[in-house]
Amino acid sequence: MVKLRSKSTSKKIQFKKSRLSPSLQNCLLFAATIVLLWGFAALAQDASQPIEAMDADVKKLKVALDTIWVIFTACLVFFMNAGFGMLEAGFCRQKNTVNILAKNLIVFALSTIAFWITGFAIMFGDGTPFFGTKGFLVHPPDAFSSLDWTVVPLNAKFFFQLVFAGTAATIVSGAVAERIKFGAFIIFSLFLVAIAYPITGHWIWGGGWLQNFGFWDFAGSTVVHSVGGWAALTGAFLLGPRIGKFQGDESLPLPGHNLSISTLGCLILWLGWFGFNPGSTMAADAEAITHILLTTNLAAATGAFAATLTSWQQFGKPDLTMIINGVLAGLVAITAPCAFVSLWPAAIIGAIAGIIVVFSVDLFDRWKIDDPVGAISVHLVCGIWGTLAVGLFSAGPGILYSEDGGPMKGLLLGGSITQLMFQLVGITSVGLLTVLLSGLAWYAMKSTVGIRVSREAELKGLDVSSHGMAAYSDFSVKQVKPSKTN
Amino acid sequence: MVKLRSKSTSKKIQFKKSRLSPSLQNCLLFAATIVLLWGFAALAQDASQPIEAMDADVKKLKVALDTIWVIFTACLVFFMNAGFGMLEAGFCRQKNTVNILAKNLIVFALSTIAFWITGFAIMFGDGTPFFGTKGFLVHPPDAFSSLDWTVVPLNAKFFFQLVFAGTAATIVSGAVAERIKFGAFIIFSLFLVAIAYPITGHWIWGGGWLQNFGFWDFAGSTVVHSVGGWAALTGAFLLGPRIGKFQGDESLPLPGHNLSISTLGCLILWLGWFGFNPGSTMAADAEAITHILLTTNLAAATGAFAATLTSWQQFGKPDLTMIINGVLAGLVAITAPCAFVSLWPAAIIGAIAGIIVVFSVDLFDRWKIDDPVGAISVHLVCGIWGTLAVGLFSAGPGILYSEDGGPMKGLLLGGSITQLMFQLVGITSVGLLTVLLSGLAWYAMKSTVGIRVSREAELKGLDVSSHGMAAYSDFSVKQVKPSKTN
Amino acid sequence: MVKLRSKSTSKKIQFKKSRLSPSLQNCLLFAATIVLLWGFAALAQDASQPIEAMDADVKKLKVALDTIWVIFTACLVFFMNAGFGMLEAGFCRQKNTVNILAKNLIVFALSTIAFWITGFAIMFGDGTPFFGTKGFLVHPPDAFSSLDWTVVPLNAKFFFQLVFAGTAATIVSGAVAERIKFGAFIIFSLFLVAIAYPITGHWIWGGGWLQNFGFWDFAGSTVVHSVGGWAALTGAFLLGPRIGKFQGDESLPLPGHNLSISTLGCLILWLGWFGFNPGSTMAADAEAITHILLTTNLAAATGAFAATLTSWQQFGKPDLTMIINGVLAGLVAITAPCAFVSLWPAAIIGAIAGIIVVFSVDLFDRWKIDDPVGAISVHLVCGIWGTLAVGLFSAGPGILYSEDGGPMKGLLLGGSITQLMFQLVGITSVGLLTVLLSGLAWYAMKSTVGIRVSREAELKGLDVSSHGMAAYSDFSVKQVKPSKTN
Repeated sequence: MVKLRSKSTSKKIQFKKSRLSPSLQNCLLFAATIVLLWGFAALAQDASQPIEAMDADVKKLKVALDTIWVIFTACLVFFMNAGFGMLEAGFCRQKNTVNILAKNLIVFALSTIAFWITGFAIMFGDGTPFFGTKGFLVHPPDAFSSLDWTVVPLNAKFFFQLVFAGTAATIVSGAVAERIKFGAFIIFSLFLVAIAYPITGHWIWGGGWLQNFGFWDFAGSTVVHSVGGWAALTGAFLLGPRIGKFQGDESLPLPGHNLSISTLGCLILWLGWFGFNPGSTMAADAEAITHILLTTNLAAATGAFAATLTSWQQFGKPDLTMIINGVLAGLVAITAPCAFVSLWPAAIIGAIAGIIVVFSVDLFDRWKIDDPVGAISVHLVCGIWGTLAVGLFSAGPGILYSEDGGPMKGLLLGGSITQLMFQLVGITSVGLLTVLLSGLAWYAMKSTVGIRVSREAELKGLDVSSHGMAAYSDFSVKQVKPSKTN
Repeated sequence: MVKLRSKSTSKKIQFKKSRLSPSLQNCLLFAATIVLLWGFAALAQDASQPIEAMDADVKKLKVALDTIWVIFTACLVFFMNAGFGMLEAGFCRQKNTVNILAKNLIVFALSTIAFWITGFAIMFGDGTPFFGTKGFLVHPPDAFSSLDWTVVPLNAKFFFQLVFAGTAATIVSGAVAERIKFGAFIIFSLFLVAIAYPITGHWIWGGGWLQNFGFWDFAGSTVVHSVGGWAALTGAFLLGPRIGKFQGDESLPLPGHNLSISTLGCLILWLGWFGFNPGSTMAADAEAITHILLTTNLAAATGAFAATLTSWQQFGKPDLTMIINGVLAGLVAITAPCAFVSLWPAAIIGAIAGIIVVFSVDLFDRWKIDDPVGAISVHLVCGIWGTLAVGLFSAGPGILYSEDGGPMKGLLLGGSITQLMFQLVGITSVGLLTVLLSGLAWYAMKSTVGIRVSREAELKGLDVSSHGMAAYSDFSVKQVKPSKTN
Repeated sequence: MVKLRSKSTSKKIQFKKSRLSPSLQNCLLFAATIVLLWGFAALAQDASQPIEAMDADVKKLKVALDTIWVIFTACLVFFMNAGFGMLEAGFCRQKNTVNILAKNLIVFALSTIAFWITGFAIMFGDGTPFFGTKGFLVHPPDAFSSLDWTVVPLNAKFFFQLVFAGTAATIVSGAVAERIKFGAFIIFSLFLVAIAYPITGHWIWGGGWLQNFGFWDFAGSTVVHSVGGWAALTGAFLLGPRIGKFQGDESLPLPGHNLSISTLGCLILWLGWFGFNPGSTMAADAEAITHILLTTNLAAATGAFAATLTSWQQFGKPDLTMIINGVLAGLVAITAPCAFVSLWPAAIIGAIAGIIVVFSVDLFDRWKIDDPVGAISVHLVCGIWGTLAVGLFSAGPGILYSEDGGPMKGLLLGGSITQLMFQLVGITSVGLLTVLLSGLAWYAMKSTVGIRVSREAELKGLDVSSHGMAAYSDFSVKQVKPSKTN
């Protein structure tokens, strides 16, 4: 999302005008020719007019191509709503399935409304270094100079940013699952997308103070994932754990009810990230988008592999939920540095994320912060790790990955202490404000409408108590063709 | 799908030729120069030849870009088959799951064959104002002048229209579920896509009488959704309700067996609509497609939100199936006006659809028309509402949304009484013919092969009786790690 | 994937330089003009410089457009991992669900790592006619002359080929399901993608001996599907059948546990093939990609329809698992000839595949080769059929489908005996090497770490024994609103 300053991406589409240069030296024959050539030069200028006309066609094509790229990648990110929905629903208990599905479905509707009315203006509208003050209801079109670096229509910019905002809101859903009031989640989502997320987003992507300071977050390890993660942590902390999760010093597993849909969700999210990261170029720059595609995918792969081995080593068996979280951990971590590092660093960043996430899930359990789907470990912890990784592995602020890095050379492209400090300042300040704002929001609701369902409702399950329905009916199958071996 | 008449989309790619004009006035120096300049002018013409060559390259790129746009959006619409499949399967009872899955899988295969052989020709082939008479088997290529407005290859036009035709057929599947004979559904689908759908489609999109009359339906609220809805209504009416659905004056809920996959289906459909509506430009016009993307998404959001609140208010609890139907209601309603209205009207159209759908589902229940998935309310009722909304909110026939509408101004862009009348004529005539044709088809089958399974088969479930298999085996899980709180 | 030699796709983007030709003949007026025109010609050359600059813009757009096409289609193919995951999980018994999900999730991570380090180099790197010897770790960029025919960045070429390699590995997963050791599957997948698949791939797509010999496989019926199929067959044979599958001469059905997700998987795969086949152009050639889109979809449709009718006729009822396999059979079969045949042959190829697959599944059952998901019938048998179909229906090597074929004419475009022989040689040699290499790999593991879980573990289910978890918890639903008719 950061405007790349490298030659290949940041330069505006430039159309050279006709120049008359070295061949003029070959043309000193008559005195008269000088005059003729003057007229000729004028005509040559004319001859370039059709080129100007052509330029307009080419420019229009360029805009259309970039727009299609943005829409395509935005659609992939939108589809992540289905990914999060299936992932989280599957990781929760059956009695709360309708509730989490309803939350994950309504949340993008809420995000659309909130980001349309205020969110986009606060995040990308012109204004102060701390928040935008213009552009409410995505109007007027010239109020968003922080997004001038991309040539796509304003509507495309809005939609692409909307699906990102929706992602941040969805992250919260998982961590507060199985005990939150449906109405409280709706209100919090509106607040997050309308106000809190856009403010810190403005700092980093909207021309705000962190962007000018030198903080780098290409596609949102901090802007999207850690913000969603901080809001989730605050909510999970204030809600308290689910009944029965912690008994004395012991943490009881409350296994997810449907790992088929969780795995589907994970694969949809993996796919969605091919929009999330490469799409953040918001321009169809062939070299940049394919590089980002590769770093993104490689980090997912090494994240999955590392989490598989780590969980195997830790628990004695490869744990599917950890493979899933390993994929996501790698993806969240590579989100900030994806455009700034070459392949080897990407592989290392993903692998470390895959290891981190296994221990982090365990750690939050020890701290008795109950996060049914591991959202805090994936999005907050690995979001922080990925943001720091920019300082550790990139060639420095604003310098795109080394194109001729080759095997292993990229590894030597260490970051810099300065950049690492920039990253720490960004992580800390964004975290502080998000915890503050979301803490206030959760607390205000807790003191008034309440945020947690009653003990009876929770034991009965939110599906029946909050929605009056069950997610599954008629199960307990009588097998049609029984087989002796089942 | 309507050819936009606005300047930005309808104008053909125009390539200016090199002209020699004002600079000639600067060149009156010698008499000889006139002759020289004559030769020079000839050469300047030559100099423009490479530009002509360039023009060809740019034009080729434009065609390729539009084609990619059409393929991308067609793929999204194709994926709606998975969306409808999951939505409908989840909304039905478990004992009929295999049957509805089989129907939703085979229906696109049937649509492909039927639309290839006759459907596309009847719908878009040259011929009369009432149906096309040329172009069977998508041949010859010059038989489809009604689609000349888009520059993509004929194959792309066919495929894009095919996925639309498939959608209409899929709509029927849900309304007749849990009691229809598999063979009857196959025959009806072939009939619908080969003959009935293409005829009314020809009227509106194929250069037929309604198109020339002034009826407007951008992406198919009427052409696709209400036609599917009318066919579904006719089928549901002639089939009669499922055993046990209505007892005296009471309507018993027969809850869906798997709301996880239904929610997934809804999100896939939401995604698919980003192809359905913006793709109907069949050209990568950056401004138009991003505008349509936003109106489409906004109507889905307000539809979901309105249906959530309405169901909450009506039933005391937010009903997940109504949130799902609210999303779809908003999407169906915005399909006709998506290109003709600005954002505020889109939000209102979606919200009203979200309210309508909740009451409509209840109304059809009272009328004892049994529609297991709410397809008639979503596709027929909201399809009509959306088609009327063109007359209420658009700036008039053929005028694309106001680009500088800004907040609230769009709201004032009221439609016109004339346009509203056009819309009513279209809705009515399309409805009458579709009811007539599908009624004949259903009735002919009812009188011969039969359309409804036997009472025993229905009670036993169609999966076992019609397919000899169950959708789920081995359930009634013994939990591996029992938790005291479950 | 084969470099098309037709005029439309294979020709490089060519930019004509400014030429001074016939108009010179009009310019013999003065003697002086000759000199002037010499200077002028030099200037005209200059005047074309801006055109050169323009060419650069257009060329850049062309590269960007092709790259977006490749990324879009690669994303569709990547998504096939979710398709295979859901298809295979649903077709297996519930007690082995976690295991198959874990395999299908980790396999793309493994493929990424293996194809990055060695696979891509062996397959497309310069070297011998039998395997590539350069380009390990996708470096240096100029080591892949076999892929010079496409203008997209090397990263895009790598990613597109990676998702294909991942597909081959996924095919194995289904056939060895419900009894293989998780670790053995990981090792085999690494071996397949790192070494075996790339070698035969090099023969056909990497400039190797079969490609030069005249063997044709456009998008991988042999390169991907039959290779995956041979590896699967070898594995299934060496593993032996699942406990209880064959009792005496009888083959017992062990029905899949969740046909909802299997059907979803099938539709995702169908969608994915719109990337698999049209994307194999690796260039946004509008005519070619839309033609391939149509042949691909038509074969899927006729495959589904034929399999439905065949299973209906054979078993008395339309079998959903056979409709699913019919879709896939048609798709696998059309993969090799998709670019070389017109619509009628495509329909026939798909229909025959749909019939073949029903009988093939039965045949492998008789042969007591236990393939839980039918992967060998779909990918190996129909992969062979599709590869032969190139020889039967295409107009001959290197000639793209007849553009003016029209209805039925395409049918007359028979292949040639020569081509059929080429195809047979390719099928046989690829099969032999793949059986040899994968046989060695399976056998080496069998003799050391073992490839099959213990009898107790298999009876208990791999989920509990290998992963310590269940895919589904809390089922055996108490219905909330019981209905008398269920």
